[in-house]
Amino acid sequence: MYIAALDIGGTKTIAAVLDEKGKILAQEKFPSVVAGYETHLSMCAESMRCLMRQMGLTADDFIGMGAALPGIVNNKDGVLIYAPYADWENVPVADILRSELGFLKVQCENDVNACAIGEQRFGVGKNYTDFIWMTVSTGVGGAVVESSKLVRGGYGFAGELGHLKVEYKNPAHCPCGQYGCLEAHGSGTALIRETRKRALDSTEFAKALEKMGLKPDGAGCAALARAGNNDALDIIDQVGTYLGRGISYCINILNTQAVVIGGGVAASLDLLLPSIRTSVQQNAFKRMQNIDIIETPLGYEAALLGAAALVLER
Amino acid sequence: MYIAALDIGGTKTIAAVLDEKGKILAQEKFPSVVAGYETHLSMCAESMRCLMRQMGLTADDFIGMGAALPGIVNNKDGVLIYAPYADWENVPVADILRSELGFLKVQCENDVNACAIGEQRFGVGKNYTDFIWMTVSTGVGGAVVESSKLVRGGYGFAGELGHLKVEYKNPAHCPCGQYGCLEAHGSGTALIRETRKRALDSTEFAKALEKMGLKPDGAGCAALARAGNNDALDIIDQVGTYLGRGISYCINILNTQAVVIGGGVAASLDLLLPSIRTSVQQNAFKRMQNIDIIETPLGYEAALLGAAALVLER
Repeated sequence: MYIAALDIGGTKTIAAVLDEKGKILAQEKFPSVVAGYETHLSMCAESMRCLMRQMGLTADDFIGMGAALPGIVNNKDGVLIYAPYADWENVPVADILRSELGFLKVQCENDVNACAIGEQRFGVGKNYTDFIWMTVSTGVGGAVVESSKLVRGGYGFAGELGHLKVEYKNPAHCPCGQYGCLEAHGSGTALIRETRKRALDSTEFAKALEKMGLKPDGAGCAALARAGNNDALDIIDQVGTYLGRGISYCINILNTQAVVIGGGVAASLDLLLPSIRTSVQQNAFKRMQNIDIIETPLGYEAALLGAAALVLER
Repeated sequence: MYIAALDIGGTKTIAAVLDEKGKILAQEKFPSVVAGYETHLSMCAESMRCLMRQMGLTADDFIGMGAALPGIVNNKDGVLIYAPYADWENVPVADILRSELGFLKVQCENDVNACAIGEQRFGVGKNYTDFIWMTVSTGVGGAVVESSKLVRGGYGFAGELGHLKVEYKNPAHCPCGQYGCLEAHGSGTALIRETRKRALDSTEFAKALEKMGLKPDGAGCAALARAGNNDALDIIDQVGTYLGRGISYCINILNTQAVVIGGGVAASLDLLLPSIRTSVQQNAFKRMQNIDIIETPLGYEAALLGAAALVLER
């Protein structure tokens, strides 16, 4: 049997056909349309029909379809309650996809929650009963797994790790309207902001970037840090320290066994890890601080694999 | 049927007989003996036998016995793994009490976890699927209830709320060996320390305390704050702000519905609440910050009632 999976991200969407082991057999990527959800979900359905035709499959060949959605999701009835990136509200995604494609089973989930579920099924999550999933990218998202179950919280919004406060004295502004959030200090955005600031403040640093043909952004900073540049290493150290603070809160509250990190910044986890570790040593309760901090093995497809995992027995 | 309950605290122990509704029918209080666990558990058993004799009861009249213990507890086999206050290690409390008293069912639990379980059964906990229990006293302890179940975490140590970092710039030393912990900034200890410091720094404040016959301690500060003294209100504001920071981490990670506060400082919760609320508004994710923050209705007997709840069906 096959699985249909959809990962609707803020900028890109992936439609794919997978087998039950999580192998991606065919996929299509296209930009996410912000205008109207009807248009975008029609495109998703069309893309899925296209893949099915190419593979000679009908809806009967599928266990079902899973969709990872960028916002607040009611996973019981498959409604996208709110998607901040497109300002969509109360979209009955599961119903629409079900009637468009004829799958009996359509499951929807918030994208970061889907990553954690994908990690449990196809990644390193199976090694732990308790772990945290963190997407570190432009923003910071989180999902909490406790006793092998996703924690939804009292009203379904658990895992807002990006808005944990990690800086009180000189807090940076966060898009959420508050100050000092992990998303404002320990994200790709922070890496870019601090790199730009440093390039303005230090001509030496600006020249070092220029000499290597690098832009004053996250990738530039990471490349310079790999080359041993002290300014770049200092910026990486700052970002890692803040990530360690946020992780430490999760450790103390949940006695979590591992943090699995995905998103664009995860590719620089080797650079960040020393400062994350030092920060965790300073900030997490001693008896609990020895946890695994690892990059997801699922890479860019974590949410897609999570979408697929939604229709498998748990 | 009756329930036998034991609350072994760091300084005092309570042995009691309760009915199934959590009504305390008879109790005895005595100091906790630090010397050896054999001596102290014998005293506990003797006290329980005494209460049973007075009431004309035998072990057969009891559903069982529950014990709240001040340390790390393996609740499955009833072993006290470590009690920091007395330096006890690996004490088979359930086995000892079972053989001393003849109860078939003896359940043990960490005291703060017991408070949360007691709150679920006999207090306001039944109003929430997700809540946090905080003991704010000399130190700060915590227990997490999620989906109506106690969260134990990956290795059984979840809920270390007292060692959440709430101050990075001017962190106070904590008995755990780290700096900036909630226990060092948002506890009874912090209240006393800041009151003493203020009394040394400000003769006006010292005189205000003296004039009302108050000592420079937590109770003195609370009394002066109730009288409208600005210095005292400022100290209360500091402590409440830090408590709000710790609570905000729980809100963001767990989307908790309520925080139930017990311990000595809970009696001043009305004074602390405005600054806790302001801090939660600044620090918890907006969509999730509107939670209940309440003093336990179980008072000093929260852990004892929790011990009793351990032997009831959950």
